[in-house]
Amino acid sequence: MDNANTGLGKVPEIITGNENDGDSGDYGDMSASDSDVQQALEVVFQSDNIHRRKSSLVPSNARPQNGRKHTNCFVHSLLDENNGIYVPSHNASYKGLAQERKVDKDPDGFLDAGHQSRLLTKKQIADMAFGIREFAKRLAHIRLKMNVQHVFLLAKAHDATLIANTREVAEWLLKRDQPYKVYVEDTLEHNKVFDAEGLLASDNSFEGRLKFWTSELCAKRPQAFDIVLALGGDGTVLYASWLFQRVVPPVLAFSLGSLGFLTKFDYDKFQSTLSGAFQEGITVSLRLRFEATVMRSQVHNGDSARDLVEQLIGEESEDNHTHKPDGTHNILNEVVVDRGPNPTMSTIELFGDDEHFTTVQADGICVSTPTGSTAYNLAAGGSLCHPDNPVILVTAICAHTLSFRPIILPDTIVLRAGVPYDARTSSWASFDGRERVELRPGDYVTISASRFPFPSVLPLERKSKDWVDSISRTLNWNSRQRQKSFKEWS
Amino acid sequence: MDNANTGLGKVPEIITGNENDGDSGDYGDMSASDSDVQQALEVVFQSDNIHRRKSSLVPSNARPQNGRKHTNCFVHSLLDENNGIYVPSHNASYKGLAQERKVDKDPDGFLDAGHQSRLLTKKQIADMAFGIREFAKRLAHIRLKMNVQHVFLLAKAHDATLIANTREVAEWLLKRDQPYKVYVEDTLEHNKVFDAEGLLASDNSFEGRLKFWTSELCAKRPQAFDIVLALGGDGTVLYASWLFQRVVPPVLAFSLGSLGFLTKFDYDKFQSTLSGAFQEGITVSLRLRFEATVMRSQVHNGDSARDLVEQLIGEESEDNHTHKPDGTHNILNEVVVDRGPNPTMSTIELFGDDEHFTTVQADGICVSTPTGSTAYNLAAGGSLCHPDNPVILVTAICAHTLSFRPIILPDTIVLRAGVPYDARTSSWASFDGRERVELRPGDYVTISASRFPFPSVLPLERKSKDWVDSISRTLNWNSRQRQKSFKEWS
Amino acid sequence: MDNANTGLGKVPEIITGNENDGDSGDYGDMSASDSDVQQALEVVFQSDNIHRRKSSLVPSNARPQNGRKHTNCFVHSLLDENNGIYVPSHNASYKGLAQERKVDKDPDGFLDAGHQSRLLTKKQIADMAFGIREFAKRLAHIRLKMNVQHVFLLAKAHDATLIANTREVAEWLLKRDQPYKVYVEDTLEHNKVFDAEGLLASDNSFEGRLKFWTSELCAKRPQAFDIVLALGGDGTVLYASWLFQRVVPPVLAFSLGSLGFLTKFDYDKFQSTLSGAFQEGITVSLRLRFEATVMRSQVHNGDSARDLVEQLIGEESEDNHTHKPDGTHNILNEVVVDRGPNPTMSTIELFGDDEHFTTVQADGICVSTPTGSTAYNLAAGGSLCHPDNPVILVTAICAHTLSFRPIILPDTIVLRAGVPYDARTSSWASFDGRERVELRPGDYVTISASRFPFPSVLPLERKSKDWVDSISRTLNWNSRQRQKSFKEWS
Amino acid sequence: MDNANTGLGKVPEIITGNENDGDSGDYGDMSASDSDVQQALEVVFQSDNIHRRKSSLVPSNARPQNGRKHTNCFVHSLLDENNGIYVPSHNASYKGLAQERKVDKDPDGFLDAGHQSRLLTKKQIADMAFGIREFAKRLAHIRLKMNVQHVFLLAKAHDATLIANTREVAEWLLKRDQPYKVYVEDTLEHNKVFDAEGLLASDNSFEGRLKFWTSELCAKRPQAFDIVLALGGDGTVLYASWLFQRVVPPVLAFSLGSLGFLTKFDYDKFQSTLSGAFQEGITVSLRLRFEATVMRSQVHNGDSARDLVEQLIGEESEDNHTHKPDGTHNILNEVVVDRGPNPTMSTIELFGDDEHFTTVQADGICVSTPTGSTAYNLAAGGSLCHPDNPVILVTAICAHTLSFRPIILPDTIVLRAGVPYDARTSSWASFDGRERVELRPGDYVTISASRFPFPSVLPLERKSKDWVDSISRTLNWNSRQRQKSFKEWS
Repeated sequence: MDNANTGLGKVPEIITGNENDGDSGDYGDMSASDSDVQQALEVVFQSDNIHRRKSSLVPSNARPQNGRKHTNCFVHSLLDENNGIYVPSHNASYKGLAQERKVDKDPDGFLDAGHQSRLLTKKQIADMAFGIREFAKRLAHIRLKMNVQHVFLLAKAHDATLIANTREVAEWLLKRDQPYKVYVEDTLEHNKVFDAEGLLASDNSFEGRLKFWTSELCAKRPQAFDIVLALGGDGTVLYASWLFQRVVPPVLAFSLGSLGFLTKFDYDKFQSTLSGAFQEGITVSLRLRFEATVMRSQVHNGDSARDLVEQLIGEESEDNHTHKPDGTHNILNEVVVDRGPNPTMSTIELFGDDEHFTTVQADGICVSTPTGSTAYNLAAGGSLCHPDNPVILVTAICAHTLSFRPIILPDTIVLRAGVPYDARTSSWASFDGRERVELRPGDYVTISASRFPFPSVLPLERKSKDWVDSISRTLNWNSRQRQKSFKEWS
Repeated sequence: MDNANTGLGKVPEIITGNENDGDSGDYGDMSASDSDVQQALEVVFQSDNIHRRKSSLVPSNARPQNGRKHTNCFVHSLLDENNGIYVPSHNASYKGLAQERKVDKDPDGFLDAGHQSRLLTKKQIADMAFGIREFAKRLAHIRLKMNVQHVFLLAKAHDATLIANTREVAEWLLKRDQPYKVYVEDTLEHNKVFDAEGLLASDNSFEGRLKFWTSELCAKRPQAFDIVLALGGDGTVLYASWLFQRVVPPVLAFSLGSLGFLTKFDYDKFQSTLSGAFQEGITVSLRLRFEATVMRSQVHNGDSARDLVEQLIGEESEDNHTHKPDGTHNILNEVVVDRGPNPTMSTIELFGDDEHFTTVQADGICVSTPTGSTAYNLAAGGSLCHPDNPVILVTAICAHTLSFRPIILPDTIVLRAGVPYDARTSSWASFDGRERVELRPGDYVTISASRFPFPSVLPLERKSKDWVDSISRTLNWNSRQRQKSFKEWS
Repeated sequence: MDNANTGLGKVPEIITGNENDGDSGDYGDMSASDSDVQQALEVVFQSDNIHRRKSSLVPSNARPQNGRKHTNCFVHSLLDENNGIYVPSHNASYKGLAQERKVDKDPDGFLDAGHQSRLLTKKQIADMAFGIREFAKRLAHIRLKMNVQHVFLLAKAHDATLIANTREVAEWLLKRDQPYKVYVEDTLEHNKVFDAEGLLASDNSFEGRLKFWTSELCAKRPQAFDIVLALGGDGTVLYASWLFQRVVPPVLAFSLGSLGFLTKFDYDKFQSTLSGAFQEGITVSLRLRFEATVMRSQVHNGDSARDLVEQLIGEESEDNHTHKPDGTHNILNEVVVDRGPNPTMSTIELFGDDEHFTTVQADGICVSTPTGSTAYNLAAGGSLCHPDNPVILVTAICAHTLSFRPIILPDTIVLRAGVPYDARTSSWASFDGRERVELRPGDYVTISASRFPFPSVLPLERKSKDWVDSISRTLNWNSRQRQKSFKEWS
Repeated sequence: MDNANTGLGKVPEIITGNENDGDSGDYGDMSASDSDVQQALEVVFQSDNIHRRKSSLVPSNARPQNGRKHTNCFVHSLLDENNGIYVPSHNASYKGLAQERKVDKDPDGFLDAGHQSRLLTKKQIADMAFGIREFAKRLAHIRLKMNVQHVFLLAKAHDATLIANTREVAEWLLKRDQPYKVYVEDTLEHNKVFDAEGLLASDNSFEGRLKFWTSELCAKRPQAFDIVLALGGDGTVLYASWLFQRVVPPVLAFSLGSLGFLTKFDYDKFQSTLSGAFQEGITVSLRLRFEATVMRSQVHNGDSARDLVEQLIGEESEDNHTHKPDGTHNILNEVVVDRGPNPTMSTIELFGDDEHFTTVQADGICVSTPTGSTAYNLAAGGSLCHPDNPVILVTAICAHTLSFRPIILPDTIVLRAGVPYDARTSSWASFDGRERVELRPGDYVTISASRFPFPSVLPLERKSKDWVDSISRTLNWNSRQRQKSFKEWS
């Protein structure tokens, strides 16, 4: 597979245009690459603008010099070649300056700052966050024409109905004129409901085109997939984010029931939706993810009076050996640090960059992306947040003080939430509602904007209204019909 | 006054540099103007960076072609020449496109889209909001060296203590070696406590240097003042925002009591603070303001079944004559639309761009800037918001439905909040807690990012920590000492 | 009308029994009066208990000595003869003791402590509140058989639909075999929709039986009505409470739309509902009302430093002449003291009995009955409260401090909420959402349990489930079908 | 010990008076028993009333016929002889009626309804709750003179400072003229800090008077202790409640730091406090506790479609064998049912008496007493509740629906909170923040007013102000000094 090493799941050979202005939010301000049938990577102007945009088809600096070399395209250069969103290169002459210091502990002395965002400098993080905003804004106005070849099907494999749906979609795809390769979870290979054998036997053109993915494949070769089709609910979309920890192919999510915050398409119309998407292109909303790394306190002999605040922002902050990283997750909704199975409250030290914000006494804290604002954040009392906002939402869970209120921080801040050394109990961290990890006294979690945002496919025709629609639908706001007030006293 | 026509109150002939505290992160593409003794416009490199910044003194597009003409400087070009933040020029070829339509009604057919942000196009508003973010980010990393000549003193003139303080500062300024001109409110001209006559009589060098300002002067000649010194509390800073509805000189606020969210300096140390600011320069945090315009429904004969939703986003949205503007305010904290003197609740139609969000049944709604997040927004249940976030906070006041939660929107959205035609009562709009304006059924308020942000002077040494400090101080977060939990059950 | 002077609207010659639904729990110490055909005062044993209740017909102290004299009955003795709920007589020997001091200022030296609850002693208030609870508990288990003769019809007279409904009910009542007298609002006498003339002309037996009430009649002769039939929404029930400021006849409320918190019956079935109620009896839920009195600060010469706290609980608390009463209201939902038309916040001093609770900085405070808990209290962030709880709910409206939380107080407490003398602005008091009254600095409102509770008629078959039903219905709790969670992330 | 079998820890020979009126809240309305030196059980009139209360010394029915037989006293008859608060005897003739059915499952067919409140009838629970209110109200106005002989000392035995304090109090008590017997925890018997041996050696009059308690002794012989002295914080008072699961001796709590909600006395003044209490008597606030019983679902063969709602209030509600009790706790603060170590939310079915309230989707629910309102309830968003209110506070913890709000229910309701059979995960129940118990699908917890309230000793001179004081102190309400508003914008 010659062209597999492309970003954003290789799929979209989009081409941006005129890069000079600050925010080219214009729908038509995109220039076309040369048509390239072999790769079928194509830039499409929104229909009604075609006639008058011809004159602007001037290659920008960022666009491919050579339409055929798709890894030169804007998306690829940002997401793939740079191992995620572009981070401006490190200028040696800055070394030693505070803003050029890595924002978190680096016990192993990584030379490659690009590994984890917590090992970027403050300036690099700010630049990266800014880069994502810029990129997201552009993507929101582009219709991406895809050359779909490899389709990834995702559903919860323990649910018989969903397995039947997966089979239905797989069969439909295999029957198209295009020789799509269809990937389903490896657990379905011998599943009776899915009946892979029967499917393959039904039409010999299917031979070699039904494939089985594993989570290892997702981790190692995310570029192998042109698009992810998720069937289920918002939880299935979260699962897609979980599988693709670095580059994520565009995810088009079908809801089996009512539409959710992330499931934008009705399963009942999957045929027309997919036909349209593959032929006319898609619109992608790039969602901020966080990168969260668990940092473990290292034992020091005879160190009886350790202080997490000193270690992170005080005198010991230069000592890279107080803590070691122990696992990193890219999350789409939220990181929660809470009391876990412990019946008493947690004490959590909260840091933003080099500041100690406060010591939270609570059941826990929820650090949410804008996408996650409608999930646990809302239950904990946080605000609804438009996904385009470049912010981090920090909300206490059952704060045991009256002075804590939900906080909205810029996504350029690096948060650290830790358990003080004198805490009586551990706390637990969970990532997108998955497995809890114990944080013992002295441990902490570093949370910052991820270099690997999540591309969510939106309905073309509703893209600008999508968020309000999802809020209205889910929280029962009635746009025209007035909300029934619970107060009817007059 | 030859050089009066300069932006941001003419004052800051910035430029750039790299500080040695935690958070500078200069972007390097700002260059120095030539030194110009006459104008005392001076470029200051932060000391330790001088040696390696020389090479970067390459003019960027935004920099002055001619260092001596300070109105060409970056700040000026953005804020003044362009009548506020730079808005990219209107491209005729875009006309007719939805995003190129003015975002609000324009009954008078203004040719000059720059007049009010509600008359910009959606694209222009997005560009402008983006310009402010960019500019604010740059300013946050710059130490501005000022050539202060005209000092504006602001205090509530009905408070005898504050009048005495005003006199004290005025006298101190008049006694400096620099021949500062000092402006105090015209109501002090014959005030006994201030004793202008006595002050002038005390030293004949003061002659001609004590001047009296009026609100008209603030409106017409904001560039006449190099800096505003506010004495009092946060309310006095709000008053400064009120006086300077368009370009605002940098505001350095002294607190008479404990420091507030906007009063960053202790009055007791005003001498050293001012000496330092005038000699070493200042750091400015550029705060988002909103521009809010009251739109009045126009009477139409026999129009019995008017519908605000139709008029704003439906079939009548192209009809520019359904409403007329009736006053515009630039606000720093919040616009509130509420039930006013009416004992029953309000019904408010809420629109974001071309979407009808919902019909709010509540005592009212609060639309707050990040700066205002600690004011009425907090009382109404909204979140604390870092002032760098480019967002609009919409919070219902005593919502009479359970489904409304505080919403965080991008500052590129144009909000409209109106009273439906079938409402039983009027609502009232207030701006930064000032005068309530009645909104009768059919009237609405348009709220969008202002082209005239508010430059708040921060302490040089604490700038990156300033917000957390103000929150901790005001809400009694104790950074090191733990918050006393109200739950002590174990 | 010989028997008009009876309590609780004369109507209910109760008594007791044991129902077969879930929650009766009769207390057995209520006995039957003799049957008395002329007065149609009838004791009804719940069918299945008759056989074993005979033996318990032992007069309690509270029961009538003489069954024929219905004013001796339990209900009457409590509500009518004693001018509201029974208050134990004043024992002269207690005078001077703190708990025997009147709880509020008494400038006119009323001898009759029974006039207003604020002029009772603390002990009397506690006794009265206790009496209401006891009485309410008993009533909840009793089926009241009524001898209905005079029916009061209530609807908002400006709504043509409601007027037509009023006519429909009136006509239905006039056509019954029983010669009911039907009272409608006097504004309907010449209303075309109601067409009183046509109604009377349609059947000459109607002659003299259609009558017109005025608010004066409600105030002076509440006992003239056996039952109030309210048509409309919860607001109409509030209006009934407003009309009947002292003794209130039982109120049976029909909803024209969906059932509300106080409208328990479906208008579409009014015929069967009324037939059943008149023949089989009704169940009454006695709702706590508050009595609220505005107290005006009196001018004192040269009194420059007055202090409300001193006047109410400090050294001047014995001085009865600092304030004068200026109007008393019995309210069913809530008293609100707020900033009214004032754009800034209110400062309100809050007192409970002889304690100064706190100084509230807020938009206002809401002091709600349990019945009002689902109205403004809920909008202000208060809890849902079962109407049987003997409590007062105090909730701040947009508190400007983080330390204020809704408070639940016993209904034996006398609350006073006042404007401090040094307040910059007035506050406004409103009563059940009606007319705002200005409270100038130094004025206050006294709020305590009223001697005149509100008898709300419940459906016989659902009485024990009534509250949960109304909550579920109105807040969309689905009993069997699970509430759709907004979080569907797994 | 002849007189050991007395209630409320045997101690208080209080005597009530005039029982006829509904709420004898008068401080003086108590009559004296005969003086009885041997038992030193004495009723004391509040000093200033003595002279004029003589005339009211008429024995009520409830008062002792014979002052010497203290087990006849009111307190004893309520709390001890009746195995907790008096519950009116079961009338056989009522059998079969709904309200005479036990309110919860009774698989073992207990004949003795008095065992657990969940096995009382609805009527009995209402009567019992009412009895506690009555009793609590009386106690609040009585000064109890105690004949203290056995003093129970309670402190957390792992804290060296507290052990030293315990020794200090023990020594002080042993040195008094009265030959008090002092009980300390058995773990102190050989504790070096406590040094029991040294203490006994210091004075041979101490011989035989220092004793060691175990939790078994607390469970079996609570009457053996005249008073509990708790040293520590509110958590120590909770521990006292935990130790004394049935009858609780009066608990006088000393705070080592700042006073709390339950620690009313300053440790620094323990000598004068104890001298005063033993000589002049104490005032007791009787706090509502809940009795909570875990009910385990029993396995039924082939029962594939069990439904908790059917089992509790539907067709299977008569089947006593669907569930078995598995442990009962008397709690002072709250019962919490939550998701425990599970990262996803809980689904909890909530029942009140025979009603299914709703299905709560949340992190959990908190069912709090008024005493617990300032603990977890407040963190979860509940209201502050005066401890005299006879209510149950139900608050969702991070509800995942917007329609759930904190609910205030009468303490006569029996709540049941269970895990539906189709729940994906277990929930966990905890009692006063102690050990979590797993609730598997089908299990539930029954919560109702306990027959064993908690007697908390209040300062004599502040009793009526005690609650407001504790709130003000803990939440930083400043009574005279105004709360600093976070909004200072004017």
